[in-house]
Amino acid sequence: MTQQVRVHNFCVSSDGYAAGEGQSLERPFGHADPAQLVAWAGATASWPNRADPGGSRGLDDYLVRDFHRNIGAEIMGRNKFGPQRGPWTDLSWQGWWGEEPPFHTPVFVMTHHERPSFSLSDTTFHFVGGTPADVLDQAFAAADGKDVRLGGGADTVRQFLDADLVDTLHVAVSPVELGGGSRLWETPEELLDRFHRDVVPSPDGGVVHHLFWRG
Amino acid sequence: MTQQVRVHNFCVSSDGYAAGEGQSLERPFGHADPAQLVAWAGATASWPNRADPGGSRGLDDYLVRDFHRNIGAEIMGRNKFGPQRGPWTDLSWQGWWGEEPPFHTPVFVMTHHERPSFSLSDTTFHFVGGTPADVLDQAFAAADGKDVRLGGGADTVRQFLDADLVDTLHVAVSPVELGGGSRLWETPEELLDRFHRDVVPSPDGGVVHHLFWRG
Repeated sequence: MTQQVRVHNFCVSSDGYAAGEGQSLERPFGHADPAQLVAWAGATASWPNRADPGGSRGLDDYLVRDFHRNIGAEIMGRNKFGPQRGPWTDLSWQGWWGEEPPFHTPVFVMTHHERPSFSLSDTTFHFVGGTPADVLDQAFAAADGKDVRLGGGADTVRQFLDADLVDTLHVAVSPVELGGGSRLWETPEELLDRFHRDVVPSPDGGVVHHLFWRG
Repeated sequence: MTQQVRVHNFCVSSDGYAAGEGQSLERPFGHADPAQLVAWAGATASWPNRADPGGSRGLDDYLVRDFHRNIGAEIMGRNKFGPQRGPWTDLSWQGWWGEEPPFHTPVFVMTHHERPSFSLSDTTFHFVGGTPADVLDQAFAAADGKDVRLGGGADTVRQFLDADLVDTLHVAVSPVELGGGSRLWETPEELLDRFHRDVVPSPDGGVVHHLFWRG
């Protein structure tokens, strides 16, 4: 089985934005309300941040839980890792996820600014430069035969799409307009030159799932 | 995480039959054409019997590949295991699946007729009597903390539903009428007294997926 590059549970607004303008420590999604974008996932039994047992086990749950299937590494952009920009002035920042990040694999953070690797629980963060293809080589090697999840944000997914390095994408489109911010696409139809697509309205979550796979 | 009892990729006709009348070695689905019922699954990348690479990776593929996620044992009825009825007169029959059965876990075949256990590759078949609850106790123990797949046929799934021992069901309803055979239900709505349900038309496969989870 060839190793794949997969995007999962990537949430965008109806006008294609994954985050709003003015991202900061206090507002990691800028002017966007992340609860509006990810509510569909938060209602499922498999959502990792659930505070209580229960949750739905229908279509949305199938999509949420596929996040972990056969994944050996994650690649993310620096803007997903944290709100800082430019050289690292404070190495005490270790991401948004606390002592138990939900990745459980090596994570490759794409950045022009070097920083030593570190581990939290069973997740190790590496900070790497280079092209998407360079970073993917490292992630594939670390994944030990398994697939690589491309975690976002929008700019990072775009770079990999532009380099034609993505095999499957699941994007959940919410019925909210943001008007500006980090954009994945103008319209989902941009990808139909290279991808097959299923469009599946969620029966529960108020979003429309777009499932792309390479043609 | 509590162990669950799960039904996956269970295919029925629009009038609720999983197999037709007159099941035999030559016609394991009786007068039904299994290709009509399972074509949606056969078109996916994850279908285990694919003769060629490729296949779709959209909604139907998510459903097909969930078959293996966190499963530690399978329970099936004797009629799924083989076409024979009554006492075993020929122990050379080892199921429909050849030298590499697709289960890769212990399988518990429910039957009133004893027979020694045997193994093919990494699947071991046990032949057990008793109530659904008795058989489930054995399967849960063998599953070592993982879930138990309830593999069918329709009579076996019905017995477990009637004993209220099923946690989730995925049933794919095909637009073909069979008129008789092994019936799962009169209508899917029968289960709504105990289950939540998502109804999701397949964008590709011509079937309607019904995803049930316990309320």
